[in-house]
Amino acid sequence: MVAKRIPVDLSKAPEEQDTIHNRWHPDIPMIEMVEPGDEVMLECMDWTGGQIENNDSAADVRDVDLTKVHYLTGPIGVKGAEPGDLLVVDILDIGAFEEEQWGFNGMFAYENGGGFLTDLYPEARKSIWDFHGINASSRHVPGVSFAGIMHPGLIGCLPSRELLSEWNKREQALIDTDPDRTPPLAAPPYADTAHMGRMKSDAAREAATEAARTVPPREHGGNCDIKDLTKGSRVFFPVYVPEAGLSMGDLHFSQGDGEITFCGAIEMAGWIKIRVNLIKDGVKKYAVRNPIFQPSALQPDYKQHLIFEGISVTDSGEQRYLDAHLAYRQACVNAIEYLKQFGYTGAQAYAILGTAPVQGHISGIVDIPNACATLFLPTEIFDFDINPSTEGPKMMVSADEIPTAIWDK
Amino acid sequence: MVAKRIPVDLSKAPEEQDTIHNRWHPDIPMIEMVEPGDEVMLECMDWTGGQIENNDSAADVRDVDLTKVHYLTGPIGVKGAEPGDLLVVDILDIGAFEEEQWGFNGMFAYENGGGFLTDLYPEARKSIWDFHGINASSRHVPGVSFAGIMHPGLIGCLPSRELLSEWNKREQALIDTDPDRTPPLAAPPYADTAHMGRMKSDAAREAATEAARTVPPREHGGNCDIKDLTKGSRVFFPVYVPEAGLSMGDLHFSQGDGEITFCGAIEMAGWIKIRVNLIKDGVKKYAVRNPIFQPSALQPDYKQHLIFEGISVTDSGEQRYLDAHLAYRQACVNAIEYLKQFGYTGAQAYAILGTAPVQGHISGIVDIPNACATLFLPTEIFDFDINPSTEGPKMMVSADEIPTAIWDK
Amino acid sequence: MVAKRIPVDLSKAPEEQDTIHNRWHPDIPMIEMVEPGDEVMLECMDWTGGQIENNDSAADVRDVDLTKVHYLTGPIGVKGAEPGDLLVVDILDIGAFEEEQWGFNGMFAYENGGGFLTDLYPEARKSIWDFHGINASSRHVPGVSFAGIMHPGLIGCLPSRELLSEWNKREQALIDTDPDRTPPLAAPPYADTAHMGRMKSDAAREAATEAARTVPPREHGGNCDIKDLTKGSRVFFPVYVPEAGLSMGDLHFSQGDGEITFCGAIEMAGWIKIRVNLIKDGVKKYAVRNPIFQPSALQPDYKQHLIFEGISVTDSGEQRYLDAHLAYRQACVNAIEYLKQFGYTGAQAYAILGTAPVQGHISGIVDIPNACATLFLPTEIFDFDINPSTEGPKMMVSADEIPTAIWDK
Amino acid sequence: MVAKRIPVDLSKAPEEQDTIHNRWHPDIPMIEMVEPGDEVMLECMDWTGGQIENNDSAADVRDVDLTKVHYLTGPIGVKGAEPGDLLVVDILDIGAFEEEQWGFNGMFAYENGGGFLTDLYPEARKSIWDFHGINASSRHVPGVSFAGIMHPGLIGCLPSRELLSEWNKREQALIDTDPDRTPPLAAPPYADTAHMGRMKSDAAREAATEAARTVPPREHGGNCDIKDLTKGSRVFFPVYVPEAGLSMGDLHFSQGDGEITFCGAIEMAGWIKIRVNLIKDGVKKYAVRNPIFQPSALQPDYKQHLIFEGISVTDSGEQRYLDAHLAYRQACVNAIEYLKQFGYTGAQAYAILGTAPVQGHISGIVDIPNACATLFLPTEIFDFDINPSTEGPKMMVSADEIPTAIWDK
Repeated sequence: MVAKRIPVDLSKAPEEQDTIHNRWHPDIPMIEMVEPGDEVMLECMDWTGGQIENNDSAADVRDVDLTKVHYLTGPIGVKGAEPGDLLVVDILDIGAFEEEQWGFNGMFAYENGGGFLTDLYPEARKSIWDFHGINASSRHVPGVSFAGIMHPGLIGCLPSRELLSEWNKREQALIDTDPDRTPPLAAPPYADTAHMGRMKSDAAREAATEAARTVPPREHGGNCDIKDLTKGSRVFFPVYVPEAGLSMGDLHFSQGDGEITFCGAIEMAGWIKIRVNLIKDGVKKYAVRNPIFQPSALQPDYKQHLIFEGISVTDSGEQRYLDAHLAYRQACVNAIEYLKQFGYTGAQAYAILGTAPVQGHISGIVDIPNACATLFLPTEIFDFDINPSTEGPKMMVSADEIPTAIWDK
Repeated sequence: MVAKRIPVDLSKAPEEQDTIHNRWHPDIPMIEMVEPGDEVMLECMDWTGGQIENNDSAADVRDVDLTKVHYLTGPIGVKGAEPGDLLVVDILDIGAFEEEQWGFNGMFAYENGGGFLTDLYPEARKSIWDFHGINASSRHVPGVSFAGIMHPGLIGCLPSRELLSEWNKREQALIDTDPDRTPPLAAPPYADTAHMGRMKSDAAREAATEAARTVPPREHGGNCDIKDLTKGSRVFFPVYVPEAGLSMGDLHFSQGDGEITFCGAIEMAGWIKIRVNLIKDGVKKYAVRNPIFQPSALQPDYKQHLIFEGISVTDSGEQRYLDAHLAYRQACVNAIEYLKQFGYTGAQAYAILGTAPVQGHISGIVDIPNACATLFLPTEIFDFDINPSTEGPKMMVSADEIPTAIWDK
Repeated sequence: MVAKRIPVDLSKAPEEQDTIHNRWHPDIPMIEMVEPGDEVMLECMDWTGGQIENNDSAADVRDVDLTKVHYLTGPIGVKGAEPGDLLVVDILDIGAFEEEQWGFNGMFAYENGGGFLTDLYPEARKSIWDFHGINASSRHVPGVSFAGIMHPGLIGCLPSRELLSEWNKREQALIDTDPDRTPPLAAPPYADTAHMGRMKSDAAREAATEAARTVPPREHGGNCDIKDLTKGSRVFFPVYVPEAGLSMGDLHFSQGDGEITFCGAIEMAGWIKIRVNLIKDGVKKYAVRNPIFQPSALQPDYKQHLIFEGISVTDSGEQRYLDAHLAYRQACVNAIEYLKQFGYTGAQAYAILGTAPVQGHISGIVDIPNACATLFLPTEIFDFDINPSTEGPKMMVSADEIPTAIWDK
Repeated sequence: MVAKRIPVDLSKAPEEQDTIHNRWHPDIPMIEMVEPGDEVMLECMDWTGGQIENNDSAADVRDVDLTKVHYLTGPIGVKGAEPGDLLVVDILDIGAFEEEQWGFNGMFAYENGGGFLTDLYPEARKSIWDFHGINASSRHVPGVSFAGIMHPGLIGCLPSRELLSEWNKREQALIDTDPDRTPPLAAPPYADTAHMGRMKSDAAREAATEAARTVPPREHGGNCDIKDLTKGSRVFFPVYVPEAGLSMGDLHFSQGDGEITFCGAIEMAGWIKIRVNLIKDGVKKYAVRNPIFQPSALQPDYKQHLIFEGISVTDSGEQRYLDAHLAYRQACVNAIEYLKQFGYTGAQAYAILGTAPVQGHISGIVDIPNACATLFLPTEIFDFDINPSTEGPKMMVSADEIPTAIWDK
């Protein structure tokens, strides 16, 4: 039933493949045209284009070049699509390559952007996760195993010229408020490492100077890193250019809400099958600004959770005003400290929150001055009972048994 | 099986009842002592102590005195509880009074603190929700009905003197950064309307000058407004004073994540049954800072959702840095604009998001500069199909039919 | 919102109350008339009308008079209802009386009809279950606790004269195939203990000789004992007589699929709130023979199960042909034998299967000669881990600790 | 991570492949030895070994040779396994072959064994289902689409000589009660079409005369057709012969409880990944007679259902005694009659019940003389609303549009 298949070659550098691009620009040529109703199977490199290896050292995560990431497969052109339409994308299935049944989770070094908790965990870390059918487990993080909720971290349509211009303007304005910050406030266009797909070289060079980086989610979707865009979900994307131009990549085997480790989920190379349809003039009909979507009937259904609260007070006791970012951070820190009582290192616990299907909820957002966020940690994913009891926690995991020195001890 | 019952009298003012208090202070006397393992049934006034009426005018919401709210029933003393213990609270059941099968949802006026979207909806609004067994519906918001996820908006143990002092210090420091702000950044102690339970008058007067207001969630739980603390859940609260001193109130029939309308959930008077137990020295054993909890096996299980994304760019196009608060705001605004296409007024749609069991997820929190939040709106709660289709939305609701002029049209 | 309330008096014998009946007959007078859209709250005695006590002896279960059971509250008349309509019943809520927070589960003695496994457990047994809010636990069955899925075991409309005649004819034909069987094949009309509600005495006496007993489920619903008819569900009942005549009772706090202990669920006295509506001529429109229903959004959502298979081979090794009854029996026996390895007596395990929200599935029904049934036992309801492990089971329960001698040891 | 892969060749007849067998016998040689903890990927033919084609004629279903079916891949030997152990099988993943993204559902002709409703639907029927990622839909059954719950219809360990003898004895005894029945009561050994795997020809010929047919589920599991044995589940199989000898096949993309169409589910060729482990002496430790299993965390989670009841009264009004088989039949017939009101032919509706993830529950099994069974039909799988309403049903499907004449009209 798959009309077309767009392959990638994992043995080649992404720059050598013209079905791939790593910037957003309206002029990137379609690599394939499809009809509404068609199904397409796209192969994707992992988000770093192969920079990370299946080994026991975090050196590659530490040294990754973050301007050379998010290698997207596409853009796919849809006949009849016009700006203002909604592109209906059914995510039919996602999988790892049969011969590549593994993925990685990393925490960037502080210098490289870090992660959500980079102040606490400033060094590069890596864990390798092996896939056992629908489940993943890691030799670097023992005692835990969970069903994947596979999804594309990054998916969306090409921006129009106007939208691109707006992105560049507003993000540069933010950068200008603190241009020397480490990590930077945003990632401006950077031509040197741009891969503009099938654009001719002169045009590509020029477009690259203004083409948007792929880091943030934006109006078109993009790097939204929403774990719920899993197989079986349906997404409605705004169309900005004729023929839509849908691209995707950054496949994840699993991820927790927030992708807090930044590098981030369980990252993998693989394939994704989609079907496209159109709702003509749907943007206006439904007053759509950002993509909307319907979840899948098929998701890991963990029901037993231990839930951690966080409020918007810093570790040093400073009160912030309704800061949901901080509240979620504190919920995450609380969960990590809890898991350490069972023997996990902080970085291991952090990796669990980044990879397992944890939920991050904004529970209270109006009770001044504290936002309240909650982190739902499924307890069924552990080999042992992590619930509180009168006996207190037992040390179930020993960092000494881990086959690598990459973890903090 | 209920060992003890703590009644309230809805026909009396809360100030006249000594089983009630509306401030946090370590010296508020226990109104009842129980043993670990005991079950207690506490009756509670609605959070305003009866200021809001079941009628078609929002005048009472507009004029509410917010220093006279959060009338809590308690504190309950638990024999043997000591600072550093975890108080294990099983929330056994919650209900409305048989003769009071209704609740209210309000949006405060901007002057009164407003709600999450007070810039867009600055005027006071109210909707009355009738309970039909486990479901609620409103004559002010037609076309929608949902199963309640009843919970106490506010529950926690008395703070120690040290903790209270820390709260006052850090919140005052925040206020001092912009002391004249409307709405204020935080709510400092305010003795005039303090209800100190059974404290003797002289001591009460003095304590009231430092007793913490109940608005924000804090380390002890408090006004966390977490919809998931529903009947069947188990909560582990840090204990700060001998005998713990557990109080609760602000019962909600239902609420969406964030309680975005501020007044906020479907607020009700009613009763709550709990059972208490202790984990001795549990705070240290499990490295607990904020309460942790286990969810209930019995919750409304809506599976079909329409999910709205929001990113941290303001309505005027300003880029903010990883601002989850703003991202969730935009997801909410997107959902409201969507629902308006079916005939709802903005305030009606806003009320739905505040009352129905919507989920607010922090989906992406590391992809600089945009946080990505998602709002999960259950579609099964509507009488009509709200999913996108090629036909476009139909006007299913008419504000003209609403029996009141309180809504924006 | 409750339009009308139909009380019962638990301190009086059911025969003394005229809002109650215990037979099905078209001429039983309506005790209350309601309009479509109305809500009604009906109080109900427990199914035995108070024959069973909260104590530690099974003597009352052993001696129960089974011709004096199923005391139903009703019938309620619905204005405008005509034969051929569908009566739409929303089950809004169900509860125990505040002062009666307990229920009972019994196994009848073989002479009294026994239960599903009466050949293995021929003696009368009883367990008392205490309600702790939404959960039940029993001093007679330690180590297990679960959220109730409250429902009426018995609900339906009065039969027409023709339908009643058909019931009597076909059931008598069955009885005639083995009239002296113990237990009997069916329960024929029995006038002596009939309670015909508000029928005048002469008419009642005559009608009682043909009025249908309430034991079996039939076309109108009746004693279907479907645990899923819980609060929040909607049922569509065929209407056979003018004004429908809806009656109900036999309230259950919880029950497993099959109600295998016969007496059977956790039986309780209590109340039920319903709302009625009509689909005119719905029986024909939807080709309805038996009631159909929609489940509730609010049900205990246990996800972790241990699942037992059974096939249609008897204990003595005899092969039966696609006998789903036998297959489910064997699945139940397999589960009981499994639970005995943890220290439960057989009768205790049997009681768990009768009361807890276990699911009984007909998994395979065509693979000659064996039907395959599966019993889904939720593992989260136990205080200890009952999953298989390499260590083998541990004795977690000791019958010696049970405060009664009613159990087999 | 896959240690070993056992291929099949779909282009060859099953008889030509020695990794396949279609009978149960203790002497069938292991085709591969694995260690506890190993993962294996087995490819499987569809259950008919390729007799059914992807076309619009049911002739192949009508003419299928039922003695040449259930081609199982295996047996796999597990080092260290001994009789009395439990073989722990994790079903890691299941899939169709990339180039074979389709399956079939059939109803056998009455002469060929028919299906559950063969008296009503005596003619052969077939529907082809196309896989669109995780979902299936059919050109023969419009308006319906659902997520697959992939599982092996048939899996289990080789029987011991004693167990095989018991099977043959008890099944022959059943056949002897009505030896000329059509369809037959059971399927006795039949040497002519036996495929005994790698047994040497002389030994194979002899063993074939006593080797058990694969049709029924038995103590070892076998053809249990339990839809819940899906990817992510864990099964505990009794071991009867040294090295266990685990075989499997009859892969289903999806199936409803009961597999009522007999041929049956959505049948497919494909592959299955498993991991094996042992619980030594587990049969005795846990008192295991039939396999037990734990379900997957990843299953289609349809929540909205329309539920049909059935009782044990025949279509002609004859009363049967607690006959769960008949009660489930009536629930199925009721659902089919209901679906016909929307335009489906009876055979189409029947095919939906056989293929979609419907649940069949034994709801009441003790209320003499009627068993009560319920069929849960998920309503979300239909493109249109099938719930009852005051307007009545609309004809949404037209048999005239179906590209084949195989359906009854």
